Amino acid sequence: MKVLITGGAGFLGSHLVDRLIADGHNVIVFDNLLTGRIDNVAHHLGTETFKFVKQDVTEYLFVAGPLDAVVHFASPASPIDYLQLPIQTLKVGSLGTHKALGLAREKGARFLLASTSETYGDPQVHPQPEDYWGHVNPVGPRGVYDEAKRFAEAMTMAYHRYHGLDTRIARIFNTFGGRMRPNDGRVVSNFIVQALAGSPLTVYGEGAQTRSFCYVSDLIEGIVRLLMCDDLCHSKPVPETEPSDDVHLPVNIGNPSEFTVIELANMVRALTNSKSPIEFNPLPVDDPRVRQPDITRAKRLLGWQPRVPLEEGLTKAIQYFRDLASGGGTECI
Amino acid sequence: MKVLITGGAGFLGSHLVDRLIADGHNVIVFDNLLTGRIDNVAHHLGTETFKFVKQDVTEYLFVAGPLDAVVHFASPASPIDYLQLPIQTLKVGSLGTHKALGLAREKGARFLLASTSETYGDPQVHPQPEDYWGHVNPVGPRGVYDEAKRFAEAMTMAYHRYHGLDTRIARIFNTFGGRMRPNDGRVVSNFIVQALAGSPLTVYGEGAQTRSFCYVSDLIEGIVRLLMCDDLCHSKPVPETEPSDDVHLPVNIGNPSEFTVIELANMVRALTNSKSPIEFNPLPVDDPRVRQPDITRAKRLLGWQPRVPLEEGLTKAIQYFRDLASGGGTECI
Repeated sequence: MKVLITGGAGFLGSHLVDRLIADGHNVIVFDNLLTGRIDNVAHHLGTETFKFVKQDVTEYLFVAGPLDAVVHFASPASPIDYLQLPIQTLKVGSLGTHKALGLAREKGARFLLASTSETYGDPQVHPQPEDYWGHVNPVGPRGVYDEAKRFAEAMTMAYHRYHGLDTRIARIFNTFGGRMRPNDGRVVSNFIVQALAGSPLTVYGEGAQTRSFCYVSDLIEGIVRLLMCDDLCHSKPVPETEPSDDVHLPVNIGNPSEFTVIELANMVRALTNSKSPIEFNPLPVDDPRVRQPDITRAKRLLGWQPRVPLEEGLTKAIQYFRDLASGGGTECI
Repeated sequence: MKVLITGGAGFLGSHLVDRLIADGHNVIVFDNLLTGRIDNVAHHLGTETFKFVKQDVTEYLFVAGPLDAVVHFASPASPIDYLQLPIQTLKVGSLGTHKALGLAREKGARFLLASTSETYGDPQVHPQPEDYWGHVNPVGPRGVYDEAKRFAEAMTMAYHRYHGLDTRIARIFNTFGGRMRPNDGRVVSNFIVQALAGSPLTVYGEGAQTRSFCYVSDLIEGIVRLLMCDDLCHSKPVPETEPSDDVHLPVNIGNPSEFTVIELANMVRALTNSKSPIEFNPLPVDDPRVRQPDITRAKRLLGWQPRVPLEEGLTKAIQYFRDLASGGGTECI
């Protein structure tokens, strides 16, 4: 297959590049390197199955020849990034999604949108199934990311319903692993970097808010299955009380094991043998209190569930950040 | 003042044109006439204070000379329209809003977004205050309008917060009056047209769902006050338990008098002396069960509340549709 990945130089996008190339596919990456890094895909540069184009995906997209799939991962995705780049975040979610859908339609290619658990906002249903409509403040500071992704989902479904495009929507929950940027403000990378440096681990609020953390290799396996599966990849008939078996509707991809932020902090301290204290800071506006995927649909449609326990994933990620600090390799997945 | 109105040939936009010109302002209308009608502004064509440009507002916007305000009303707005034009609806809400904001920024003009009660979706809080986050299905058929407007609000707030643009967001609830299109599927015009023709009045579901109906002159008064008021148009300090007094956050503009759809049908039958029966049809997907604005903020910030009772407004609207059917004038506001 020939696959275009927007945002393919980012944390998740670049792991997807690695996986698809390892599986024998051809990959083109469009990335403007606003939050992505060329280092993440540098090991593929100059190879026959890989092409990198420095390209803002809100501009006109051109690819010569056929394409089998367009995978839209481009977006600032950490709160630090999208609060600093609010208008770019809104643009890539709306115009960028529209351009990527238009290219998929032109090529007759399948389209996969990297959406997010942020579409659920600060959820009032726990865990979150895909048919939960979410609880998002459209005019709050975080609204720039959440509404951009909700809009992207609406646009993707419109292309599916009205142009018959074969689309997929992955709602990605918290994911961690190698190639996270040390300073992008995500809780896992924050804690690891702080613990390794012996600095205080910054917890927002009382740390009682929960998150579910998916190791990157599990996440990528779920994405690849969703991208590759056919409409009839599910086999059993679905009772009416069960979630929809329509593969075009959103699918949660994430790890349902739930931890409080304090539990995570203590696990990172233990695994790094760090004596860093925990420092408590005020909770940001509209910060979700809980977040846990209901993965019933992913299990049934894709036969997928996460396999890597948090402690094992953290151990690998800690090694990545140790190597990074010592100027070593970055190929820890 | 010199005011640009996108969608100024539509139902609400054209009434705003009339009002601003009557108040001594200069008005430019950008409208692609997709759902607007040139007839709605034909009486201003050729006058010195009015200019019409047939223009898709998702394309590059150019206005020579200064502008004091940009008012963004362009969008398909009735369910029949936006379900037939889903991608255009998403585009004008995202790219159109972005272009209109960009023009306002370039000109140093104030910006007003015509948003909608649809941002509340099928609400679980009743009546709806502006700080209610809403209950919208991003991937449902109505999502194309609801998410486009939620996105437009997020983009407007981003321009306010990050570019310091002086912005306003009006959340417009059901409004009726002259210049509604006879066949655009809105409940008031549907019932009047059906009653005058002696056809059955089509009610969806059991008709127990409620709506609040604002007469167009009241709505326009609220919009003009929101557009013209300064940041400090409110005078009294606000207790913490009260809604925000930030004029840049959304303001509900609508009539809080609540009626069931059946009550409306019976009122229209009585006022038209119609013997039309009522015909019950299946409820559309994600149809809101209730909808009523909390107008506390509009009252305090703008000193505004609706004045025209439903029966009086309906009588005027019925006269408009009678005149329209007989080929007569359309200047019933």
